[in-house]
Amino acid sequence: MAEPLRSVLIANRGEIALRIVRACRELGIRSVLAYSEADKDSLPVQLADQAVCIGPAPVKSSYRNAVAIISAAQAYKVDAIHPGYGFLSENADFAKLCEEQGVGFVGPSSDIIRRMGDKIEAKIIARRAGVPTVPGSVGAIAEYEEARAVAADVGFPLLIKAAAGGGGRGMRVVPTADTLEKDLAEIMSEAEVAFGDPSVYIERYLTDIRHVEIQVISDGTTVLSVGERDCTAQRRNQKLVEESPSPALDDTLRKGLSEAAVALCREVGYTNAGTVEFVFDNVERTYYFIEMNTRIQVEHPVSEMVSGIDLIKLQLQIAGGQPLTITQDDVVLTGHAIECRINAEDPDRGFAPGPGRISAFRAPGGPGVRMDTHIQAGYSIPPFYDSMIGKLICWGADRDEAIARALGALGELVVDGVTTTAAFHQRILSSDGFRSGEFNTAFVAELLDGRAT
Amino acid sequence: MAEPLRSVLIANRGEIALRIVRACRELGIRSVLAYSEADKDSLPVQLADQAVCIGPAPVKSSYRNAVAIISAAQAYKVDAIHPGYGFLSENADFAKLCEEQGVGFVGPSSDIIRRMGDKIEAKIIARRAGVPTVPGSVGAIAEYEEARAVAADVGFPLLIKAAAGGGGRGMRVVPTADTLEKDLAEIMSEAEVAFGDPSVYIERYLTDIRHVEIQVISDGTTVLSVGERDCTAQRRNQKLVEESPSPALDDTLRKGLSEAAVALCREVGYTNAGTVEFVFDNVERTYYFIEMNTRIQVEHPVSEMVSGIDLIKLQLQIAGGQPLTITQDDVVLTGHAIECRINAEDPDRGFAPGPGRISAFRAPGGPGVRMDTHIQAGYSIPPFYDSMIGKLICWGADRDEAIARALGALGELVVDGVTTTAAFHQRILSSDGFRSGEFNTAFVAELLDGRAT
Repeated sequence: MAEPLRSVLIANRGEIALRIVRACRELGIRSVLAYSEADKDSLPVQLADQAVCIGPAPVKSSYRNAVAIISAAQAYKVDAIHPGYGFLSENADFAKLCEEQGVGFVGPSSDIIRRMGDKIEAKIIARRAGVPTVPGSVGAIAEYEEARAVAADVGFPLLIKAAAGGGGRGMRVVPTADTLEKDLAEIMSEAEVAFGDPSVYIERYLTDIRHVEIQVISDGTTVLSVGERDCTAQRRNQKLVEESPSPALDDTLRKGLSEAAVALCREVGYTNAGTVEFVFDNVERTYYFIEMNTRIQVEHPVSEMVSGIDLIKLQLQIAGGQPLTITQDDVVLTGHAIECRINAEDPDRGFAPGPGRISAFRAPGGPGVRMDTHIQAGYSIPPFYDSMIGKLICWGADRDEAIARALGALGELVVDGVTTTAAFHQRILSSDGFRSGEFNTAFVAELLDGRAT
Repeated sequence: MAEPLRSVLIANRGEIALRIVRACRELGIRSVLAYSEADKDSLPVQLADQAVCIGPAPVKSSYRNAVAIISAAQAYKVDAIHPGYGFLSENADFAKLCEEQGVGFVGPSSDIIRRMGDKIEAKIIARRAGVPTVPGSVGAIAEYEEARAVAADVGFPLLIKAAAGGGGRGMRVVPTADTLEKDLAEIMSEAEVAFGDPSVYIERYLTDIRHVEIQVISDGTTVLSVGERDCTAQRRNQKLVEESPSPALDDTLRKGLSEAAVALCREVGYTNAGTVEFVFDNVERTYYFIEMNTRIQVEHPVSEMVSGIDLIKLQLQIAGGQPLTITQDDVVLTGHAIECRINAEDPDRGFAPGPGRISAFRAPGGPGVRMDTHIQAGYSIPPFYDSMIGKLICWGADRDEAIARALGALGELVVDGVTTTAAFHQRILSSDGFRSGEFNTAFVAELLDGRAT
């Protein structure tokens, strides 16, 4: 067994930086926060054991500046870097650089990040592991004739996806065979420009779907499933509300998803925390693997609240070479948890981000309420980064109690000085569609334009 | 089945008033907060559905003013009054007045409050239920000769206790037989003056003890134990830190305590939430019933965090005549929870209370952290009431994780403008004695005067 980590550089900002500071503190790990000039007065900087400015506000100069981050890690003699989510967290080159420089990386190896980051290779690995994937091309489509052959199997409408895309970027729906050739050519050239990689693949276009994902954690030997999260409530492919368990699954489906995720991890020898994402087809009531996120996710607290497991601490322990001390039988999921991502955006102005100074802040409280946030009274939201200012996660003995608590907590939340999406979350959680549990990824858009209630 | 409560008057203040507001909100119950002039700007007043001023700051004019409270309940046409803890919560006359006026009372009947509030009758009931009590007199001691006979059985030192006392008041240790006659006469006349009742009883004086209590909840038919809380960390008989489970108990003792508490409740036909308090003798490793609190307690969140049960909501449901929908098998206790009572007191000045204005407030956060508090930036702590400004309750998968989280959270807590006991809690939680789990009710005093570390 390797030595536990004694020190960690946190190469991130906002609530996840604070979350990692807290986990380090509980484990007795010295935390060093690498921050940009724009974040010098932030709460994570105040609460970390040490903090080091790694550059100006723009992300390419700071949070995506691999050289500055690794230099800081070396200067502060840390054992490892925790990348959080976003930024360099799924950048295989960065993980590789860490490996070459002898700095630990809290996550899987650069090789695994690279392989799972390639949508086509990930799909091939999934099939090899016996995990169902969306019907479509196995590998990259090289030319129109190939696309036409796949389309014959898959049917129209179909989806062309850039292998290097994700989060809704680099996708196009092709309604009929008429435009297939043109659409293929266009999206390949767009992918070349956007991602530096023209590879695309074709999938069946599923419309009545949910987004369900499995949280996994592995020490390289033991792979555990920490159950599913349902992230169906999205707006423009951005998750808004996540919950566990999924109201759409029965125990058989739930078990199947977990086993599929674990099988996939075993197939690649996955290590550390990860999320295996699936679409769930409401019509066929079946699921297909879509991609794996080789990092901790925004919505990880949902799984923490139903399992009692501290995923960030496990990440740090595994990165220090400490084996998991729990087994799958120890992962007991209780009750229901719901997370609302609170953004500094104005729903009445097309969700335009609104940076600004927070004049007053009051977090909600009470039983089952957790608010992960880096904001406080007097904090100015910098305009350089994403607009998420916190996550409200509420637990209840059942889904109704979790919803009631979340609604109450949203009502208690005070963020003066900027407009937030809190009221919009109240609208989602009190809608008939959300409360019934029967909705799909189009639901939020339908709620917004009045087609759903 | 009766109608669920639709409206409740909350006859309390501070964090427990806010706690009840939240529970009402989740159940769709209209909350009406009865507040004193001193509390008009408090957070519970802001968050309750309605609020009514019941009188000036002094408790006898407001929170102990039974007539004003019942008048407010009638004026606001509420179904019931929730008394919280302290104030009128264990006042049988008040409960009786509610019964006579046809206003519901969230708690047991006035008859049960009266019987369990009489220490001597409670002890007799416990014995009848087969629950062990501290060796000593069964009923009230009328005269010296009787005391001498009991003392011969019990041995010296022994304890004389006023039947109407409690919380450390109305007790005297008698070291030897020499002073028994004089001590008995004195404490009887003191009890007459202090409580209007000279009744006293005699008990064996136990020194190496812990305080352990069982949370119960009953709908009058089903009586559930929600496990124990260990409240051994006290200063001058005031609880400072409470935890569940107790580090001193094994499963056999734990089961015995729960069964004893349930048997006692069955014996009196107890209804609603209550706490059965025991001393645990570290030497003999046995327990004795001491008293029952016929109300919700300050430390109830500890049990909520290990059980996932919302005790205040159950109180309200039971008061509305709704039977419990869970059984003892559904009460599954997971992990470990620790509560620190944060007081606006100065440990360096003999824990002198320090009311004042809070210029800045930041609640701690992160996984497993719950802070129940009514304070916020700009809030002025009135000098009329107790000094508790909040409760920090931390949950961990085990005791070590709960302690680590509580220590981290105490470090994050910011309460500017007044001196609090937060740093003192850090000292307790990081002490060798507390961490070992092996300590007794004298531990905090010993830590303060340097006899313990």
